Amino acid sequence: MKLLSFQHQGVASWGAVVGDHVADLGRAHPQFPTLQSYLAAGRLPNLAQDAAFVKADVPLAEIEYLPVITQPEKIVCAIRNYHDHHKEVVAAGLDRELSSHPPIFLRTWRSQVAHGQPILRPDCSDSLDWEGELAVVIGRSGRNIPEDQAHEYVAGYSIYNDASIREWQFHAKAIAAGKNFESTGAFGPWMVTADEIDPARPLELSTRLNGERMQSTNTGNMIFSVAQQIAYASTIFTLVPGDVIVTGTPGGVGWSRKPPRFMVPGDVVEVEIEGIGVLSNPIAQARQ
Amino acid sequence: MKLLSFQHQGVASWGAVVGDHVADLGRAHPQFPTLQSYLAAGRLPNLAQDAAFVKADVPLAEIEYLPVITQPEKIVCAIRNYHDHHKEVVAAGLDRELSSHPPIFLRTWRSQVAHGQPILRPDCSDSLDWEGELAVVIGRSGRNIPEDQAHEYVAGYSIYNDASIREWQFHAKAIAAGKNFESTGAFGPWMVTADEIDPARPLELSTRLNGERMQSTNTGNMIFSVAQQIAYASTIFTLVPGDVIVTGTPGGVGWSRKPPRFMVPGDVVEVEIEGIGVLSNPIAQARQ
Repeated sequence: MKLLSFQHQGVASWGAVVGDHVADLGRAHPQFPTLQSYLAAGRLPNLAQDAAFVKADVPLAEIEYLPVITQPEKIVCAIRNYHDHHKEVVAAGLDRELSSHPPIFLRTWRSQVAHGQPILRPDCSDSLDWEGELAVVIGRSGRNIPEDQAHEYVAGYSIYNDASIREWQFHAKAIAAGKNFESTGAFGPWMVTADEIDPARPLELSTRLNGERMQSTNTGNMIFSVAQQIAYASTIFTLVPGDVIVTGTPGGVGWSRKPPRFMVPGDVVEVEIEGIGVLSNPIAQARQ
Repeated sequence: MKLLSFQHQGVASWGAVVGDHVADLGRAHPQFPTLQSYLAAGRLPNLAQDAAFVKADVPLAEIEYLPVITQPEKIVCAIRNYHDHHKEVVAAGLDRELSSHPPIFLRTWRSQVAHGQPILRPDCSDSLDWEGELAVVIGRSGRNIPEDQAHEYVAGYSIYNDASIREWQFHAKAIAAGKNFESTGAFGPWMVTADEIDPARPLELSTRLNGERMQSTNTGNMIFSVAQQIAYASTIFTLVPGDVIVTGTPGGVGWSRKPPRFMVPGDVVEVEIEGIGVLSNPIAQARQ
């Protein structure tokens, strides 16, 4: 099932996509006002039953999307997790060795932006770059999760555009700054529940800028698998329902191109992942 | 005034320290159940009035401390922000240049631990190190805050022990992993409201392990000032009440010693800052 967070007629809710309509599960089950609270209550196994008698009466065309999980406690993001991206990083003179462990950074939920909403280019830098990525939404709490049990903790799969301000990522050699600008972490349009995705089957992933393909890979080319990333992160802290693992971007980012190419106001960036959908965002200039 | 978060007789609250007692402000003003909610409501300018008729009837000896802000939305931490620490990092072969901008990483609130509670050494690594630091608690929302107005956004000052798992900080060249283990970010015992601290006057800071002085500096030796750090962070995202800026550690950490020295269960680590107090934590082994 496709689950999403949205706003309709000024009311924030969440629901399931049925054709070109949405079944408003937040309205039907007010004890779970957000998708995150539904996951936290451990209700996901009851989803079919909880959705069965809820009429899909909200036109998809009328909603305003919200980030799939609006305020994740943690957004754990991988860097250099595809071989082709690692190669372009090395070509840029940054670092030669493949990491022996998954390199991660944290995003705050405040940096997120929904499907359809503008990714904002800040006034302080023009170096706004795209990064199409598979996002994994955690459905159960766990610490020190063994790799071979990691998929039991996945609620579903979604799409992230881990858009980055390259200048701020590099000017202090501390990645978090360039990765946390407000309205840069695009997340949506929905998550597909884990029962509909075979984790053993690679998914095609591509990023397009104004229709031109910029990134193209399949998720089988990750250096550290989804299961390895979940196991690693859960050694550090307890993963909780609604946490998001953003699994890294393939080659083809803008700053490694010659000359570098960045996103400018008026552009439209799309990330498509097979079996999930298309995350689309226009680019706009931030207003201070 | 000294404000703290605590638990007493099983009830979480917050209050003001008066001698060896606490005035329970959370009980007196139930519309503000946490210090964070009080700051978010913009009540801090009314503190003297809100505390005036609240009897300090809870013995300090009876409370269990909580992290000063229990669940900050953001914990923005500086790295390499004292010249003597930068020198020991360079001596360890890591990086030669002073950063032109403040290098930062993010902690999650889940990594925090209160004054008096054990900092936990995880099972995966013995490399648990201390980092005594000045913590700044944000009192007002702001974005793109000019440096010369930054101090208007400070609610108060506190103490942080940004305890780090060095092996995990370095094994993937991504700092966030080693800085986010649960029960490693000690924060307390209280914050001293900004009206009682002159930001122009450096404060003595020292870290002691089992009574032996390991770090000693004053906050005037920072590379990037508190005001510069607030201005920088607020360029990235909106700072909100309860956010914490952890301003970096001076020289004298354990991993740069020859031989390296790490904290082991049974140790007691203290960070003292002039005009604020002493943050003390025993070390214990994590139980899985």
